[in-house]
Formats: sequence, C-alpha cells, structure tokens
Amino acid sequence: MTTLMRRVQWDHQTMKRFLDGPRADVRARVRGWLEDPVFTRRHDLSLDERREQTLRWCQELVQRGATEMALPRELGGQGDPASMLAAFQELSSFDYSLVIKLGVQIGLFGGSLYNLGSQRHHDRVKRAFRLEEPGCFAMTERDHGSNVRDLATTAVFDPRSDEFVIHTPHEGARKDYIGNAARHGRTATVFAQLEVAGRGHGVHAFIVPLRDESGQLLPGIRIEDCGPKLGLNGVDNGRIWFDQVRVPRENLLDRFAQVSRTGVYKSSIQSASKRFFTMLGTLVMGRVSLTASAVSGARTAVAIAVEYGDKRRQFGPARGEPETTILDYQAHQRRLMPALATCFALDFASRHLIERHLAEDPEVEIMAAGLKSMVSWETMQILQTCRECCGGQGYLWENRFADLKADLDVFTTFEGDNTVLMQLVAKGLLTAYRKQFRLSRVVRTLVKRAGQMLSELNPLVPRTTSEEHLRDAAFLRSIFRARESLLLVSAARRMKKRLDQGQLPTVAFNECQDHMLTLARAYTERIAVEQFLAAVERAPEELRGVLKSLCDLYALNRLYEDRAWFLEHGYFEPAKSKAVRDLVIKLCAEVRPDAVELVRSFGIPARVLGAPIAQAEE
Amino acid sequence: MTTLMRRVQWDHQTMKRFLDGPRADVRARVRGWLEDPVFTRRHDLSLDERREQTLRWCQELVQRGATEMALPRELGGQGDPASMLAAFQELSSFDYSLVIKLGVQIGLFGGSLYNLGSQRHHDRVKRAFRLEEPGCFAMTERDHGSNVRDLATTAVFDPRSDEFVIHTPHEGARKDYIGNAARHGRTATVFAQLEVAGRGHGVHAFIVPLRDESGQLLPGIRIEDCGPKLGLNGVDNGRIWFDQVRVPRENLLDRFAQVSRTGVYKSSIQSASKRFFTMLGTLVMGRVSLTASAVSGARTAVAIAVEYGDKRRQFGPARGEPETTILDYQAHQRRLMPALATCFALDFASRHLIERHLAEDPEVEIMAAGLKSMVSWETMQILQTCRECCGGQGYLWENRFADLKADLDVFTTFEGDNTVLMQLVAKGLLTAYRKQFRLSRVVRTLVKRAGQMLSELNPLVPRTTSEEHLRDAAFLRSIFRARESLLLVSAARRMKKRLDQGQLPTVAFNECQDHMLTLARAYTERIAVEQFLAAVERAPEELRGVLKSLCDLYALNRLYEDRAWFLEHGYFEPAKSKAVRDLVIKLCAEVRPDAVELVRSFGIPARVLGAPIAQAEE
Repeated sequence: MTTLMRRVQWDHQTMKRFLDGPRADVRARVRGWLEDPVFTRRHDLSLDERREQTLRWCQELVQRGATEMALPRELGGQGDPASMLAAFQELSSFDYSLVIKLGVQIGLFGGSLYNLGSQRHHDRVKRAFRLEEPGCFAMTERDHGSNVRDLATTAVFDPRSDEFVIHTPHEGARKDYIGNAARHGRTATVFAQLEVAGRGHGVHAFIVPLRDESGQLLPGIRIEDCGPKLGLNGVDNGRIWFDQVRVPRENLLDRFAQVSRTGVYKSSIQSASKRFFTMLGTLVMGRVSLTASAVSGARTAVAIAVEYGDKRRQFGPARGEPETTILDYQAHQRRLMPALATCFALDFASRHLIERHLAEDPEVEIMAAGLKSMVSWETMQILQTCRECCGGQGYLWENRFADLKADLDVFTTFEGDNTVLMQLVAKGLLTAYRKQFRLSRVVRTLVKRAGQMLSELNPLVPRTTSEEHLRDAAFLRSIFRARESLLLVSAARRMKKRLDQGQLPTVAFNECQDHMLTLARAYTERIAVEQFLAAVERAPEELRGVLKSLCDLYALNRLYEDRAWFLEHGYFEPAKSKAVRDLVIKLCAEVRPDAVELVRSFGIPARVLGAPIAQAEE
Repeated sequence: MTTLMRRVQWDHQTMKRFLDGPRADVRARVRGWLEDPVFTRRHDLSLDERREQTLRWCQELVQRGATEMALPRELGGQGDPASMLAAFQELSSFDYSLVIKLGVQIGLFGGSLYNLGSQRHHDRVKRAFRLEEPGCFAMTERDHGSNVRDLATTAVFDPRSDEFVIHTPHEGARKDYIGNAARHGRTATVFAQLEVAGRGHGVHAFIVPLRDESGQLLPGIRIEDCGPKLGLNGVDNGRIWFDQVRVPRENLLDRFAQVSRTGVYKSSIQSASKRFFTMLGTLVMGRVSLTASAVSGARTAVAIAVEYGDKRRQFGPARGEPETTILDYQAHQRRLMPALATCFALDFASRHLIERHLAEDPEVEIMAAGLKSMVSWETMQILQTCRECCGGQGYLWENRFADLKADLDVFTTFEGDNTVLMQLVAKGLLTAYRKQFRLSRVVRTLVKRAGQMLSELNPLVPRTTSEEHLRDAAFLRSIFRARESLLLVSAARRMKKRLDQGQLPTVAFNECQDHMLTLARAYTERIAVEQFLAAVERAPEELRGVLKSLCDLYALNRLYEDRAWFLEHGYFEPAKSKAVRDLVIKLCAEVRPDAVELVRSFGIPARVLGAPIAQAEE
C-alpha cells in the first residue's frame, strides 16, 4: 500500500501566505495572543467556572485591542470588519465559546446598537465594543425562533411619561436562548411589536437595562438560566420575561423609524415589510461571521486527522514487514482527502461572502443564508469523519473532537435554522428570476446560464469520460451552472403551475420544498466551485498545481455525490458517472502526498491545535 | 400545510407487544427498575462522581438480579442471554455509560473467563457476573487496535516457578483504552503473545490481578487514567503497563490451549490462525450487544423529535391564522419519517442477528461485523437529524441529544472500527463465494441471487414506475439481492484479475477497497430489507398496513440514496429513479399521521425518556 511518495512541489510558507490573505498581519497578531498561558483549554471546570473563564478571555482580548478593529472609525475605532473576521477565524481554532460570546457582545449587541440606532446611541456602542457594558441580543422567543415577524413581546408608547412599556404578554413570548443573559448581560437590545396610539407598527428594537452595576436584576425583569447545553457551555444563555418595564423614548433604536414626543410614528421606509427586513440586516453580518468561523473548525479537525493518519500504522502488507500508514489505505484517503479539499472550498467561498458583504452586494443576503448553511453542514460531516478516522484516540477529550463537535453542532441552527435558510435562498432565487429588476446582476447571469444549459446538453458531452475533460475548468463551471439553472427554471414552472391552479403560495411552496432545497444546494455548490476555480487562477504559480488538484477533487466529489441527478437529467451517461467515481479515487491518491504540508499551511500554532496525536513529538 | 389527519388504524399497545417480543416480561421488569429515583441522570457531576454513580447503578442492577439472566445455567444462573440483551436495550434508553460498564464487566470480562477458560475458572465467572470481582478486558494496545494478531505484550512460561511472566516490552505495547482499568477493575483478562520454551504460540488470554482488595495497585502494575472523553464519561478507561508480572499457570484461560507443568504446549485447534479467530469469538457477542443497544438510542432520539415536531408550530399558511405544526412540512417529514422507518429496520435486523447468534450460525461473524457497523452509522445520522429537527431546544442538555450523540459516537469505533469491519464482511463474502464448502448456506443463496440478477435485468422492469410495482415485496427483495450479488461477482472478478497479474493480496484488496465497502453495505441493507419484510409478514393483521408503509419507506429511501448505482447498472431508467424519489416523499406523508403513536409504541417510560420537549405537559 505504501504509495511512492513524490516530493512536495511547493513551499507551505507560500501556501500559508496565500491562505492568510490580506489580513495576514492580524492573523499573526492573534496567533501571538493565543500563546499566552491565560488561553488554556480545561475540561475540569464547572458550568460557572467555564462561563467566568470565557468572560475573562473576552476581556483579555478586548484589552489587547481585538474589538477596536471592528469599532467604526467615527467612534474612534479602526472600522475594519475584515480584520475582525480574520481575528475571529484564528480564535475559532482555539475555542468557540469565546468566539460566540464575543460575537454576541460586539456583533449582535454592539452591531444592533450601531446599525439600528442613531448618533445618540454611539457612546453605548463604544461601551459595548469595549465590554464596559455587557449586553444581549434579545430577539428569539420561545414560540418564535425562525418566524421573527410574529414576535409577541410588546412595546407600547406612553405619551404621558414619554416612555415605552416593554412587556411579555404570555409564556410563549418569553425571550429564549439569549446569549449573555443568564449571567453577564447588563443591557439588552429587545425586539418587540411597537404600538403607538393604539396602532401597531411591527417589530422594532429597544434598549432595555437588565441589571444594575452590581449585577442585580432590575424591577420587572425576570431571568432564568437555560442551563447546560450540548456545547458552547462557556456562553451563558438565558430566558427573559418583562413585566411592564418602562424605558425612555430615546431607547428606541431609531435609525429607520422614530416616535415623536407627541406620539407620532415616522419612518423613512414606507413598506412595513421592507422596514422589517432592513432591521433584520444585522443578522446577515452574524451569518457571515459564523460561516468564516466554522471553516476554522473544519480545518482544525482535518489538520489533526491528517497528521495522525500520516503517523498511525495498522496491518502490514505481509506479516513481519512494517505496518502500513493508514493514510495510504484507499478507504482512509477516500474519507479524508475530500474533507481536506472541502476545507479549501469552504474557505474560498467564505472569503467571497465576506467580500460581497463588505461591498454591500444585494445578493449577499441569500448568499450568506446559503453559505452559512452549506458550511455548517459540511463542517459537521467533516468533524464526524475526522473523529472516526482517529478511532479511539479521536474520542479522547484532549484530541479536540469532543469540543469541536459539541460546539459547532448548533451552527446548523442559530442565526437561522439551515433548512429554513435554504428555503429563503430558493425564494430569493425565484424572486430574482421573476422580478428581473431586483438583484439584476444575479438574474442576468442566471438567464445566461439557462442558455449554457442547452450547450451543456450537447449529445457528445454526456459520453465524454476523459480525465482531461472532467478536470477542465470550463466543464466544471458549466455543469454546476447548468444544474442550478435547470433546477431554478423547473422550480419556477412548478410553482407557477400550482399558483395558476389557485393553490395558496405557502401550500404550493411546501409541496415543492424538496425541489427548493435541492435548488438552494445547487446554488451554494456552484458558488463554491466558481470561487475555488477563481482562487486557483489568482494563486502564485507555484501553488496552482496542488490547488487545482484539490479543486478538482472537491468539484468531482460533489458531482459524484449528486451523480444520480446528472444521470436522471441526461448530463451523465453511466460510463461518465463511473469515470467520475474512478477519478475521485485517483485524485485522493494524487493529493495524499501533499496532505501533511497542506494542513500545516493552515498555520494553526501547535499550542492552539493541541491534540497530542497531531503533534510531531507523538 | 395542515394534512387531513386520518385516524390511526391500529392500537399502539398491540404494536408495543409486537416490538417488545418474546422477552416483554424482562423489558417490563427493567422499565420498572428504572422508575427508582436512584436512576436519575445528572449533568453537574465531576468525572470522579460520574464514574462512582455509574458503578453504583451497576451494583443496583446486579442486586436486582439483572446479570443472573446471562450467567450460565451450570453456574446457577438463568443462562438466558436473550433476556440479558433485552434488558440491555431497555437500559440503553436511560444511560449508555451504565450499559457499557456493565457490558465490560459481564460481557467482556465475565464472557472471556467463561468462553476462553475452563471449569477451574467458573468461580471467577460467578464473581464477575455478581460484580464481586470488578474486571477488565485488556486486549487493545496503543499500537494495535484493529490488528489484534500483532499484539506485543508477552507471556513467557517459566517452568521453574510454574508461572507465566506478563510483560509490556515497549511503550506501544501498553494496554490502552481498557474499560474499568482507571478506577474499579481488580482483575484483567490480558491478551498476550504466549511463549513456551522459546517458541511463540500466538495470542492467548491470561487472568492478571491488578489491584488488591483495598484498591491498591499490585507490584509490577502501572495504570494511567485515559482521562475525559467525548462521551461515556461514566466509564473509567485506563492504560496498563506490566513489568515482569508473574501469574500462576492456572491463570491461562485454557479452554482451547493448555501448557503442562513441564512446559508442553497443547491445543485442540491445530491451525494457529484458526485458534486465534476462535479465541476472538468473544468479540462477536460484544458486537451483537452493541447493535441491539444502539437501536435504543436511535429510538429515543426519534421519539423525542417526533413528539416535539408534532407540537411545535412555526409560520402560518397565512398571517393571522394559527401557525403550522412543523411535522406537517414536507421538508421536516422528509428528514424525520425515514429516520422513524429506519428505527424499525434496525430493530428487526438486530433481532435477526441475535437469533442467528444464539443459533450459532457460522454466518453470524460477518453479520455481526456488518450490522454493528450499519446500525452505529445509521444511528449517528439519525441523532444528528433529530437534534437539528429540534433546533435550539435539541441543543439543551435536558433534551437528551447531548449525551446520546456523545455516548453513541464511539459505537462506530469500539468492538472493531466500522471501516475495518466492513472490509471483514467483504472478505467473508468473497471467501464464501470462492470456498463453496464454507458458510455453504450463505453461498447457495448468493449463487441463487446471481441468477435472479438476470431476471432483474428484464428490459421491462427498469422502466416500470407504478407505485404498485415499487412497493411490491418481490421487487424489493430481488433488487436488493441483485445489487449485492452483482457487487460480489464483480468484486471477485476484480480481485482474481489482480492476483492473476501477481499483485500481493493486500495490495489488490486495497485497490478494490471502495468496491469492497460498497459490497458490504449492500449486504447489510439486503438483510435489513429482508428482515423488515419478514417482520411485516409475521406481524398481527392489524399492524401490517402501517408496518408495510414503514418498510416501503425504509427500502425505497435506501434505493433513493443509492439510485445512482441502479442507474449506472441499468436497473433504473431515469423515469424510475424519479418515481422512487416521488414515492419516498409520498410515503413520508403517508406515515406522518401514525408517527406519534409509532414512537409511543417503543414503550420508553416518560421518566426514562426525559426531554421536557417530548413530554405531553410541555
């Protein structure tokens, strides 16, 4: 089984520089911070101790100026979210409770104050970013997680006292699963139904104090601890009830809507629905961050499994002879090499998402929903595969999979349930397809693809099985686009047919739900493949060979996983489908000699990686 | 979305009786035991406290006579392993550390003493089953997990003192991951290379005392704690080093081989290899137990997710109207209903395995390897799906998924790594196919199937898409058999070709590894479908309808998952493949109205199930 190991053709420092990207300096700084012994993971902590440790870690980072990167320029910060995201990625290789607690504090609490509030709230924003005012983002309610529009908490304006009265009308309206609420949060951004002079104006955000300086709950506030969770136990989630809690009028985050002293409601956005989605914009940044953060977990897991697989030996070619390195077995390569290639795909896709987000691309909303879902799902699968590939060793706490699996599990749920988000993606694509005036750039490309679809059906292609053809970038681009376009066109047709028959849109959509989710997956995978191919093109000459191999492995493995669809729709003849399978196996062996250097180029410091089985000494 | 809910056509008590099977009395007794408040799960325990709690639970069960069921008749027990397995299944719905620690004590330690030892060891067997002598099963070494044959621990016979000298020659030979070793084990069955008069006789088992009555380590014994794990933290795993430890000659477990006072080695089994595998027989029982045990975890998870999905509402058909129950969404049904059907499939398959094991069917070795792998893998997927279907609620410790996911994770690894076991299955099938004299029954059916394959290729069938055809038991039986047979025949051909070209068997096998794993999966799924169909036939009239729907859903979902293979090999035309997909979606909706009653028929007591979100009150 011992493959003839060719020497690696590239330098892993060059790869590291390429992967670190424009914010390499920030990444280096954060890696440096994590060398401090204060950042040491422990398993023997009680729930309380774990939460205190996480808070302390957040404070340590704030002291080192970590959060100043994201603080807007006009507030004295560096106003550089890209650096903050790079920092988050590096921190994600160390501990997720830290990342999430910090994310709640500055991304959700601080972010909501800044994005939904006005000048008058800027001091609070600063205090939030500097952790001087620990806060919560109180949106989710027990009975309303995904369906935010129907939140039941009320905020009634009282003109006599010039205050809003925040109230929890029934048990189902309690704020639930709120990060920072159980222990450390002193203030919350609370989302509630605004009512002025007996008229409802939909969901708005209010600043509501929860605890005083000493940490005592304020009158009218009841908080309960959500208790231990599957993972992320360093984050103190809680439930909040409001009993006629009064806050001054200035506590309405009034960037998009204001209430005057005399009780007149005014908003720059006329459509209530448009206003609602504008206010929800805050969530997009959250999804972008989670996407970038999850990638680090996948990388950490693959780094550990590859290092171990390259050292561990079991069974020999013949008795007496030295046993075979398990990463030289076809089955082991077949499990780990696609996972390795996927780490690169997810990273390039998440970088693209960040760029689109910073460029305020209107498509970013569906892109963030889709990629957060794809990345979190792929990551969970990668973690499982890597744990199993490390056998019993992978089951020991010290080797990291325990925390990685537990902490990342909820990434498929929070900031939007993946299945719900993928439907949002499908709806977005359908809307773009119909209303050509919205998201016009997306539409144009989509329509163009619908055209390419036909050329794709060229009778010759489904029979072509040569490696050269299957690894041709043009082929890969067009087949992923063709699948997406065909699914979009057919989804639109199916919906139209049902609506013409007079079905309720919700009913019609439910009956096409499976189709919609398939479309959303095709959309996200098309982006991932396109971005991988783009990364290969912009990479230094020296790296293109190995990156293209990884790209081909990722893309062909995706085609392999969905080959049934391509067979069903005439894109593949059986011979081509089998050729894809054989090529995937071949590519796994092709990438294997580079595997160790590749995971080292992730640049995860040994101390942060931990995992004795992954260490050179071991 | 609200499906018109037809009334359930059957009584869940009838279903419960059917699922409880012949050992219903034992199951009822165990469920009764678990009503005792002593059996209460807690999250706030330190590692030490958790281990002590688990030991106490084991003692409580022994006091109630749980282990007497499995104790052989000639030793005063009931000699009824089937009852013990039923008890294990019920205990598995409560806590897995308890089940595994008890399994190590009586299944591995007690079982090895009884199966590998002789009359003289019977008192020890009794003490083991009664937990009077806490023990370990010390087989695995750091460098040899799967490859047991190359264990490095030595046992040299010293005729002068009439003793065996047990020794750990190097670090890689330390006994690793040994359950009960870190804390409670007083004695161990140690597997070591026997050497008599300078001649090696391969791996044999020896009784080696580890600690004295007071728990102090004995001279020459060094033990280290494996420390915290991803799950099963109630089990105290440890590492053991032996420094020239001397044990009397009687401590050789001498059922299959003896060493005389004068140092003459004698064995009733001539072939060293055959002797080795005979001694490994103990492991089969372990795999049988794990298979049965894992099914309970899958059931528990599905029970919780279905109860919650039937209560939880989110989004409305139209604003203002009551929101829709999430289990009425197609996407939610598509995730949970196949999981529900799979619980039944895994249960029927594991019952079959138990029967074959008790009947000492020679096929049981590969069947246990295959089904343990299939069931543990399916269970992990079901747990993930169920956790996600319960959203954030599923992430709370109190709702069970935290422990279920953590504890069951290692089922894919221990008692044999799944990927290694699946190759063992493929090898077994190939051997049976070649050597027609071994496992003859299997072979005859396999050859018969190879014939049916042809009839399966009847040009009409690949085009037939009617529901009647797709749900026809004869079609389902033959297509699963055909896939297995074709994969077996082609695997045999590929191997022969390579061997004829002079490739080393190990090299040839490695290059066909992907094919071998596909064959093994086809074998296990064929058994699952056959057993499900058999269960439908033997079920009470009243239950056949719903069971057949579940069976069809399971079988067609398996066909759907592997439809690419059937398309590639001409069993499906695209139209048939799409028909399978549409029928799976239809069957999900068909089963949904019965879902709640179905999970209640698992008979998991509310107190054992726990999970507030699954309780009627919630």
